[in-house]
Amino acid sequence: MIQKTILIETKRREEMVNITPQIKEFIRSSVKDGRLTIFVPHTTAAVTINENADPSVPRDITFALNQISPKLKEFTHLEGNADAHVKSSLIGCSQEVLIENGELLLGTWQGIFFCEFDGPRTRKAILRLN
Amino acid sequence: MIQKTILIETKRREEMVNITPQIKEFIRSSVKDGRLTIFVPHTTAAVTINENADPSVPRDITFALNQISPKLKEFTHLEGNADAHVKSSLIGCSQEVLIENGELLLGTWQGIFFCEFDGPRTRKAILRLN
Amino acid sequence: MIQKTILIETKRREEMVNITPQIKEFIRSSVKDGRLTIFVPHTTAAVTINENADPSVPRDITFALNQISPKLKEFTHLEGNADAHVKSSLIGCSQEVLIENGELLLGTWQGIFFCEFDGPRTRKAILRLN
Repeated sequence: MIQKTILIETKRREEMVNITPQIKEFIRSSVKDGRLTIFVPHTTAAVTINENADPSVPRDITFALNQISPKLKEFTHLEGNADAHVKSSLIGCSQEVLIENGELLLGTWQGIFFCEFDGPRTRKAILRLN
Repeated sequence: MIQKTILIETKRREEMVNITPQIKEFIRSSVKDGRLTIFVPHTTAAVTINENADPSVPRDITFALNQISPKLKEFTHLEGNADAHVKSSLIGCSQEVLIENGELLLGTWQGIFFCEFDGPRTRKAILRLN
Repeated sequence: MIQKTILIETKRREEMVNITPQIKEFIRSSVKDGRLTIFVPHTTAAVTINENADPSVPRDITFALNQISPKLKEFTHLEGNADAHVKSSLIGCSQEVLIENGELLLGTWQGIFFCEFDGPRTRKAILRLN
């Protein structure tokens, strides 16, 4: 088992942070073939895989998620971030990525993004190789 | 391979049931390090990880999911539960959890919830250690 | 490590294609017990598990996803498919399936669907046994 926790400093309430470079660095010199779990130990954040080329894509996804899961007047959670908890369950707190010949097996346009829904905060993501 | 199927008796049409205690009991005395897959073999239910401290969080998530995936008049599925099938695909029927030193590697506030979207029913979740 | 890439020819902009038969063929004669990762290397597609019996279910899910993630006038991504990127992150680009006694451990009604959100295209899904 090889495991590492990386830190992510988010700067806005909602933000998608590209963590592909840290993940590539982690698997370098680690394994030739295997599988990587990326686990986010937070309940108002998530991790997703999406387009890494045009920065308008994470911006549009962040915008759309605010439409899909707005702050609702019926929410009862007193911290005022129930919308962020909903987004966390919609996107999910883990991703599985395959490794082949020591490289992340991602599609041409894919990158891995930490999704902040209730920032800014210092956040963690756990990387585990299997 | 170590595997167990747990039963969940749901009491309402939509409900999030905390199954963290059963999962902790399953991994106790099983492994020191590893990975657990939680797989829900149903198409109108799901499994998610979210806040386990304040019961208003699962209640607000359940409420929001009814806004996000309401019953639509255009649905053609005759059983009348297409909204539940949509929610199942949005949340997902499996979760991966890491185990470290024999403990679930969850964040401070995280718990694992079985999500019922078309209950009440007797449901299953399959726990598999790898 | 046993891995295979399958091709999926989609025929519409939005479509759910049942890929359970190809996956069953892949695991046949491969393993007795294990776990299968299905990874979609695209950012406007996804993979989900849902009801495989009544074709109205994938049709209703596709319809509902168009309501949940419509084309928004505020989107800035110039390719005009930001709605498809949003759907990809909502549904997710991978699924984990358990294998027991050489068979997919799916529920009675479950099938595995490739989700096209910006077709028609020739798409891939990577199957990896662990």
